[in-house]
This record gives sequence, structure tokens and C-alpha cells, in this order.
Amino acid sequence: MTITITAFERPPDGGKGLARDTRVRWALEEVGQAYEVRLVSFHALTEPAHLRLHPFGQIPSYEEGDLVLFESGAIVLHIAERHAGLLPKGADARARAIMWMFAALNTVEPPILELVTAKFLEGDKPWSEARLPLIRDRIRHRLGQLSARLGDADWLDGAFSAGDLLMVSVLLRLRSSGILDEFPNLAAYVARGEARPAYKRAFSAQLAINAGRFPPYQPEGAAQ
Amino acid sequence: MTITITAFERPPDGGKGLARDTRVRWALEEVGQAYEVRLVSFHALTEPAHLRLHPFGQIPSYEEGDLVLFESGAIVLHIAERHAGLLPKGADARARAIMWMFAALNTVEPPILELVTAKFLEGDKPWSEARLPLIRDRIRHRLGQLSARLGDADWLDGAFSAGDLLMVSVLLRLRSSGILDEFPNLAAYVARGEARPAYKRAFSAQLAINAGRFPPYQPEGAAQ
Repeated sequence: MTITITAFERPPDGGKGLARDTRVRWALEEVGQAYEVRLVSFHALTEPAHLRLHPFGQIPSYEEGDLVLFESGAIVLHIAERHAGLLPKGADARARAIMWMFAALNTVEPPILELVTAKFLEGDKPWSEARLPLIRDRIRHRLGQLSARLGDADWLDGAFSAGDLLMVSVLLRLRSSGILDEFPNLAAYVARGEARPAYKRAFSAQLAINAGRFPPYQPEGAAQ
Repeated sequence: MTITITAFERPPDGGKGLARDTRVRWALEEVGQAYEVRLVSFHALTEPAHLRLHPFGQIPSYEEGDLVLFESGAIVLHIAERHAGLLPKGADARARAIMWMFAALNTVEPPILELVTAKFLEGDKPWSEARLPLIRDRIRHRLGQLSARLGDADWLDGAFSAGDLLMVSVLLRLRSSGILDEFPNLAAYVARGEARPAYKRAFSAQLAINAGRFPPYQPEGAAQ
């Protein structure tokens, strides 16, 4: 059955792989599933045809036969449940891998998204600069806890799992902030994720779409 | 096997049921599983014994034999996967129920938590008041989309599921803000959730712990 996902026609990050379709592409690459991509313009995100797929007007959505899903976390879990490679076999280990998926999206990502909100939705406000140190400290607090738990392990709980896939994806948002480098074990953890062939294929795929429409990719370019 | 969860010894909401142990209690009540509760003081949250259970120093954690979980979303999903009552039987419907779990926690809750952050972590800042209308508008935007999708249905996708359990739990955080009442179908949806016997038992259980240690419960008391 053909899998079709949606992605931004013009990703706001200019191809740095931070849009959430990259997470889904990565999961599909890890399990070796082919997929098609339908690009969506910003304008089309809020049109009825897209809202039927994704009521919150975002990307990615996921179509597979009669099934339509949104929420990248749910899509990654769906892929992980149906194909080997992203969840351990033991029941307890599987539950812990799913736990790390939720931890990535609910505990680690929210303070990171506050940084994005502060820059892009409130960047023109008089308090914008003054708030940044507070937000950065809240991120540091979470990363300190995550760093302590990871220790010198390669992955969060045994072998690489969907939990690591989402955690690395979330932490990648911090690259341009410099905060990630304050935690060497987390920076190395993210680098291990990026070094996986499946991640590289996913990153290249989203970049290729972008490259066809945009000025050349600037790794240290636009803020995240 | 005995299930043990952790909860705040002194919930910051004074027993309004907004601490995340209520979500787990509700799930356990829906599927008819008995559980024990270990109360944790604020001081103990950051001690090594608790951090071994929950690396982010929060509640709830969940212990069942050798399995230790944190993240209320992951705990609710674990319960829903092992006992009938919170996930539909069909594969596609099951995937959609899990999708709504992620949507509740990742798309709907984050702007709501911004309101909590603004009040409690930045309430003393000069920009605190000026930011509130922006945050409230971001919440309204999400709720408008959710309201449009729910329409006049009782639940988000067919029968009540773990997705509704988490969505209602997330929306309950908005009660004191008045924003929920701007969306009558969402207010009615939350009321349907609260009317479920399992929710009532969960709410009473967390309130009982609270009532033993605090001044009487004030429904319109402390801000959320």
C-alpha cells in the first residue's frame, strides 16, 4: 500500500531538516519503507482539503490506504509498530522506548519550542530580548536532567529506538542556539543520530525538495 | 502485579486534579485496575531515589514489577494497550486514538502550558501582563481548530478512547481562564469527560489525599 506524507513546499527553515516531515522520513528510512511526498504551500495548509487530513493545518500528514494520520509522534509510532527496527521486542523495553518518544515530545521539546515562539512570534516585542535568558535556562534545566540520565550510553535505553529518533530530532532544533554544545554527551548523542544512514537519506530527501526551489543551503544561515 | 504510581504530597493546584497523576488514575479507573500511590514531597522530587524513577524530577511515575515508566502519556498508553476499554479494536481506529493522545499532549497542551509558565515562572516580570493576550490568542487558535474537528460529536473519533482521556485532561487546565467557555462544544466535551464515573473516582482519589493535608478545597481558588 502506498504511503504518502505531506511536507512544506517552502520549509521555513530553508532545508535544515527541522520541519517535522524529517522525523517521519527518518522513521520510514530506518524500516526501509518507500514513501511518496505531496508538497503543501503555506496557503493550502488552511484549506479544507488539507484540514481534512490535518485539523491543525500543519505537516506532516500520513496516508496509507484508508488510514489518515497526523502528529509526527503518532506517525512514527505507527511505523515502528508495523515494521521491525524501531522498537525492542521485549514488552518492558518496548514500553520504555515509547516512554522516551513521549519524553522527547512532551518534556524536552516544549521549552525548546518556547525559544522558537519567542523569536518568531514575539521577536518584535519589547520583552523579546529580556526573555531569552529565562527560556534558555529552562532548556538547560531539562537538558541537564537528560544528560545525567544518558550518561555515557550511546542511546537512551539499549539499542537505538523510536525514542532516540524523536529525541535526536528534538535536540537538533537547538543546534543554532549553542546550548546543545554545553552538554557534550548530548551533542555526541545527536551526532550519532545524524550519522545513521537512514537519517542521512531523510535529510537529503527533504533538502533536495528545498534545493529545487530556494537559494543554496546555508548551514549557519537563518535562525532556527 | 501491584501497580504503584507517584503523586505530589502537596499538589500545587490544591486538589483541582490538574497534576498529571490524575490522568493516570483516570486511565486505571477506566480499565478497572487497582493501584497504590506513593506521595512525594517537592524536596524529594530532585533526590536520587526519585530521579532513578523519573529523570526529570516530576510525577507521576509508574511501577509494575520490574517495569518503571514516567511520562503520563506513555503510562496511559501502556495501560490502554494491556487492558480493554481505552483503545478501539480495529487497527486503523486504534492508530487514530493514539494520534489524538499525541495531539492532546503535543499540539493542544503546549500553548496552554505557556499560560501556566507566564503566570508562575514569569508572573513577576514587567512583560507578564502584556504577553497574556498573545498567549490566549494562540490557545484560541488551537481550540478553534479542535472545535471545528469535533463538531457535534461526543468524542474525537467514535467511542471514548485514551485520546479523549488526555484531550479532556489537557482542556481542563483552561477552566479557570474562561477560554474553554468560548467554545461551547469543547466545554460540553470536557463536561462529558468529567461526568464519567471513572473520572469522578480518579478526581475524588486525588482530592482525598489533598484534603487530608490542606485547607478545604476552593473550586474557584488559587489560579491554575
